[in-house]
Amino acid sequence: MRKVILGVAVSLDSFIEGPKGEYDWCFTDQDYGLSDFLKRIDTMFLGRKTYEMTLTTGDNGGSGFPKLKEYIFSTTLDKVKEGATLINSDIKTKVEKIKNEKGKDIWLFGGAGLTTSLLNLGLVDELSLAVHPILLGGGKPLFSNIKDRINLTLVDTKTFSTGLVSLTYNLGQK
Amino acid sequence: MRKVILGVAVSLDSFIEGPKGEYDWCFTDQDYGLSDFLKRIDTMFLGRKTYEMTLTTGDNGGSGFPKLKEYIFSTTLDKVKEGATLINSDIKTKVEKIKNEKGKDIWLFGGAGLTTSLLNLGLVDELSLAVHPILLGGGKPLFSNIKDRINLTLVDTKTFSTGLVSLTYNLGQK
Repeated sequence: MRKVILGVAVSLDSFIEGPKGEYDWCFTDQDYGLSDFLKRIDTMFLGRKTYEMTLTTGDNGGSGFPKLKEYIFSTTLDKVKEGATLINSDIKTKVEKIKNEKGKDIWLFGGAGLTTSLLNLGLVDELSLAVHPILLGGGKPLFSNIKDRINLTLVDTKTFSTGLVSLTYNLGQK
Repeated sequence: MRKVILGVAVSLDSFIEGPKGEYDWCFTDQDYGLSDFLKRIDTMFLGRKTYEMTLTTGDNGGSGFPKLKEYIFSTTLDKVKEGATLINSDIKTKVEKIKNEKGKDIWLFGGAGLTTSLLNLGLVDELSLAVHPILLGGGKPLFSNIKDRINLTLVDTKTFSTGLVSLTYNLGQK
């Protein structure tokens, strides 16, 4: 079955954006494993706000991204851009169906609301956090409104010369 | 100069206690570097709540702890147990004085309020986080009400077989 992977840059105090939406603290000087990560996936899950942000900043916020199948999760939009698929109901059933289709793994790209929903539904298989050596002190937390404890299994750590630590966990098994 | 080290167990979502004050998720099966850490220190800084907790649970919450000089930070207490020292004013001046005294390093043992005060005053020199492989979903955050971004320098990572990752950072230098 295809995995849903939450892959994201985070501060040591677990924020994905600073208090004013800043993400200037995210390191861009190296690849940090992104190329290898992108080889594993062919699909992206995006929440509505993140989707709208990618529309204004260009294709998924970065050049050099491979062409990915995009699913946009929203209960307020009634259409999305050509080629993308809108999911506005029955999230659990639809995500399970997608995970059972043939294909590579799926990047849960954000945002916070979608991440919470999928975590609470038990639909996330892997966390891949690029922990940056900074305390932001405030902003948008990566994890919020999680209903129950979620036990994790550490599968990999990588330490980079800049102080970024990449932590990879599998979810689930108690 | 002696260092003030914030040494603490934390969930991946940056909580030091669960929603009901739980810390049953903290691993106790191994030493996790605690013995080496204790060799570095001879002094503890405790906030009022943490101090009161140590009074009910016994000497610093654990047997086998070396005898440590204790400073209790509180604006409401007017006395503390024999042998301990109360700090209820002029935190910055007094902590700087203690850091300049002869001695080993100092364990900032918590809690959250004291941690925030000392971080915002620039008096913490090192973070040593035992990141546990769990999302608690809520509880008491390790970091709260930090005024400004704090840049960190990663100095060490250790990965344990149980999935605990020990991350050590120096504070300060931009």
